[in-house]
Amino acid sequence: MNAVTFLSPVTEEIKLVEERMRAQADESHPDLRAALEHLLAAGGKRIRPTLGLLVGNMLGAPLDKLVTLGAAVELLHTATLVHDDLIDGALLRRGMATLNARWSPPATVLTGDYLFARAAILAAETDHLPLMKLFSETLAIIVNGELTQMFTSRGLISRDNYYKRIYAKTASLFEMTSRAAAMVSPSDDATIESMRDFGYQIGVAFQIVDDILDFTGDQASVGKPLGSDLHNGLATLPSIYYAEANPNDPDILSLPNGGWTNNDNMTRLVDNIRASDATKKAMLEAEQHIDRALVILDPMEPCAERDALENLAKYIVNRKV
Amino acid sequence: MNAVTFLSPVTEEIKLVEERMRAQADESHPDLRAALEHLLAAGGKRIRPTLGLLVGNMLGAPLDKLVTLGAAVELLHTATLVHDDLIDGALLRRGMATLNARWSPPATVLTGDYLFARAAILAAETDHLPLMKLFSETLAIIVNGELTQMFTSRGLISRDNYYKRIYAKTASLFEMTSRAAAMVSPSDDATIESMRDFGYQIGVAFQIVDDILDFTGDQASVGKPLGSDLHNGLATLPSIYYAEANPNDPDILSLPNGGWTNNDNMTRLVDNIRASDATKKAMLEAEQHIDRALVILDPMEPCAERDALENLAKYIVNRKV
Repeated sequence: MNAVTFLSPVTEEIKLVEERMRAQADESHPDLRAALEHLLAAGGKRIRPTLGLLVGNMLGAPLDKLVTLGAAVELLHTATLVHDDLIDGALLRRGMATLNARWSPPATVLTGDYLFARAAILAAETDHLPLMKLFSETLAIIVNGELTQMFTSRGLISRDNYYKRIYAKTASLFEMTSRAAAMVSPSDDATIESMRDFGYQIGVAFQIVDDILDFTGDQASVGKPLGSDLHNGLATLPSIYYAEANPNDPDILSLPNGGWTNNDNMTRLVDNIRASDATKKAMLEAEQHIDRALVILDPMEPCAERDALENLAKYIVNRKV
Repeated sequence: MNAVTFLSPVTEEIKLVEERMRAQADESHPDLRAALEHLLAAGGKRIRPTLGLLVGNMLGAPLDKLVTLGAAVELLHTATLVHDDLIDGALLRRGMATLNARWSPPATVLTGDYLFARAAILAAETDHLPLMKLFSETLAIIVNGELTQMFTSRGLISRDNYYKRIYAKTASLFEMTSRAAAMVSPSDDATIESMRDFGYQIGVAFQIVDDILDFTGDQASVGKPLGSDLHNGLATLPSIYYAEANPNDPDILSLPNGGWTNNDNMTRLVDNIRASDATKKAMLEAEQHIDRALVILDPMEPCAERDALENLAKYIVNRKV
């Protein structure tokens, strides 16, 4: 399973999305254009626009709206990453220098703001008011989630808290993309709701796998030290499973009291989690979400896009980065 | 001329705008709600929502849309101030502690982002797609203006540059507010265009007066040291008039070469500008914009709102803070 198997039906269309994104800096300052070029070059597999294009094409949505939606979603995603990297002081993302590694914090704040503005312009250019509302509400969910995470005490081990966090952080935008693509197609409400749920399920799985890769991934390709979440006091699903199986582990017990600030203890805890079956249990949970997503596709008419969406869903739990 | 004479027709409606703004934090984290309360308490004369309400009421727009528009515009304005204060490292605004004086930079970045998101939601709640587009485009103009200012070399004395800057910084939002209020009313295109121009003219005048007050204002109520723009290498209209009259002043000549970083020289230059007729010339220019705004009101039917708009326009050049 690789990216090619789900990208192939929309390879050309993704190029249109990228052109559309690039055009957002056309009237802006040359330095800002250069920054956007840099961000686009650093830019991943475009999973979100691919999801929107596949769902929309499957349901007969007009291509121009899907390209606009894809560019809006990916630009919104990029804007949140720009501010996130600034907040975290991250210097690398996907092996490339972050904007704040090259620019001053003020320029980075404003570049993120500019990308938010251009994403909102693109969303408005779909000429679809409910989509526009959904788009701004999703931005509010993402940012409120980040603020809540910032204000929540570190070291908290809570499944409820974890699910809320990954919804805000990741699943909400997948959900919005898939739902919006259906909304601009001639689909009935039941189909729109199915596609919303499809986006939600693969979005949740995507973030769970990200959190597993934080423990098991190849350090170079993840671009962060192993167990970086735990070192920052964030208990993700593997830690939660480990804590359930080992409630008296002293490192686990220390977490809510600031134990996560002790580097040696956290390195030991990361090793123990890696050696346990916690990441396997977390992966089973991610796979359950993918199974639910695949069930949603069952009643859809067979077509190249449905096959690609299946492959996209399966890729999410099989990816290595 | 005081604020009462233009506020009186909409005093009750401004309260609705403030309630609407306050409600934007209802579902968010308690700390974020407290931050929004703080920002609202610190919040000025609500000139932008007042402008929208007066224009809209005069033209028969529905009140609910004007309240929504007013809250969207004021929240957008607040969001830009939150990021501005962070970027400038400002600790006080209107005599009250800024958010970044009390919060960490990450929390301040995210609070600004959240306010952008809520402003976009409000704009979408007007259910008016062209308004929504205008709203996002105005945000892009404001942010691109700030970025351009950041990338432009300091000490530049250019009238063209100055007018572009104050359009992006201030006039664009006044223009958008006045135009949008007309757009949601049953007005024809010519009236909408008149109201756009009205907002533009008073917005330009507003910023020119702000820039004059930076030289002549009461330091305590302006909340910044006198001539703070020049000390930051920004030549505003009084400096431009002074430079035109005194092209060989050594402090003026030093500006493009970094002379603005010399505190003693800039203090002397500020004194010289204050002693000259440069601020008077700048005020005449602001008054010309107000005169143009008043001419636009001439053909409108006499009514309380038209009178209040006249008073608002006159207040802008007579205010002391």
